[in-house]
Amino acid sequence: MTDKKIITISREFGSGGRLIGKRLAEKLDVPYYDKEMLDRISEKSGFCKEMMEGAEMQAKNSFLYSLASAMGNGEMGPESLSLNERLFLAQFDTIREVAEEGSCIIVGRCADYILRDIPEATNVFIYAEEQDKIKRAVEQYGVSEKEVKKLMKDTDKARANYYAYHTGQKWGEPVNYHLSLDSGYIDIDDIADLIIRYTEVKKNPQR
Amino acid sequence: MTDKKIITISREFGSGGRLIGKRLAEKLDVPYYDKEMLDRISEKSGFCKEMMEGAEMQAKNSFLYSLASAMGNGEMGPESLSLNERLFLAQFDTIREVAEEGSCIIVGRCADYILRDIPEATNVFIYAEEQDKIKRAVEQYGVSEKEVKKLMKDTDKARANYYAYHTGQKWGEPVNYHLSLDSGYIDIDDIADLIIRYTEVKKNPQR
Repeated sequence: MTDKKIITISREFGSGGRLIGKRLAEKLDVPYYDKEMLDRISEKSGFCKEMMEGAEMQAKNSFLYSLASAMGNGEMGPESLSLNERLFLAQFDTIREVAEEGSCIIVGRCADYILRDIPEATNVFIYAEEQDKIKRAVEQYGVSEKEVKKLMKDTDKARANYYAYHTGQKWGEPVNYHLSLDSGYIDIDDIADLIIRYTEVKKNPQR
Repeated sequence: MTDKKIITISREFGSGGRLIGKRLAEKLDVPYYDKEMLDRISEKSGFCKEMMEGAEMQAKNSFLYSLASAMGNGEMGPESLSLNERLFLAQFDTIREVAEEGSCIIVGRCADYILRDIPEATNVFIYAEEQDKIKRAVEQYGVSEKEVKKLMKDTDKARANYYAYHTGQKWGEPVNYHLSLDSGYIDIDDIADLIIRYTEVKKNPQR
């Protein structure tokens, strides 16, 4: 293993995954990509940031998203891809490019799947029990419990559908990640340390 | 938190979960229960060990297992429970008793569910990619790849059905465990160390 460390964080809404990602970036002193990724994708592809921001949430309705995503113009070649597919492709290229450049932390955006054949990548899934996620989200976003519950349901549904559509895998299923952690029982800081320790002892299986 | 540490290991066939459990018991110098649990249950309940050994594998066929498990004698009280349910109850009591006694490692037997309200319990799920599990099982049990594949499929199916029937939860779903680890990428010894580290920083959420 080289010293290069790429850590992808997939996370349930309210689990603190983004904070863990930021803490990891600070501790390892490497770039952190979440919303920051959108600027890169936008620069590279010309797609406007706002449109990309909404892309994942569109997948809240799995059927409509699949329908819209499947509607290319009927020709062969990249021009025949639907807008959703071209957005995903731009995201794919940018994430591969960012990972090529060096160590980094990437939150969300199917990065675990996009980097699944990169030996330096460690894929982490962060989740928590519902009451812990609600408590954290109410404190963090300052909205009511009722609003948090709705937002949590919609966001996680959209994430799961978006992931399923583009990767053919099930979001949150352990086998897609190297390790999965319940954030309700240990501090953000301790979780970051555990993940770093995992990357230090991780090896590539002999295949 | 007291210094008492109870670690339950749930594991896919061929993932090395049993070895990880043993290593944990050695490192922490605490009792290890896997097949050893059967002696305890047998002593406590009078059920014969061989019958208990086969109980989980019976669940390979989910429908027949549910049917057999539901067939009590129609009366109220513990006497009306089916044999499968009485076996599970004996297992339940013994696992609670063992956890009461002090630190220990328990492999399998729905121990995560049985001890879910015990603050000292840390529930771990060990899994791996198929090719890694096959490789490990072929080496460990000295049987052919074809046999391992069949055994793996049957065993994991039985474990999942048995767990679903008795706990109402989905086996292997992250939210049932504090952490889940892919054993294909790090050594047994390092996994044991990571789990110990987790138990050291684990806290009880404020509820």
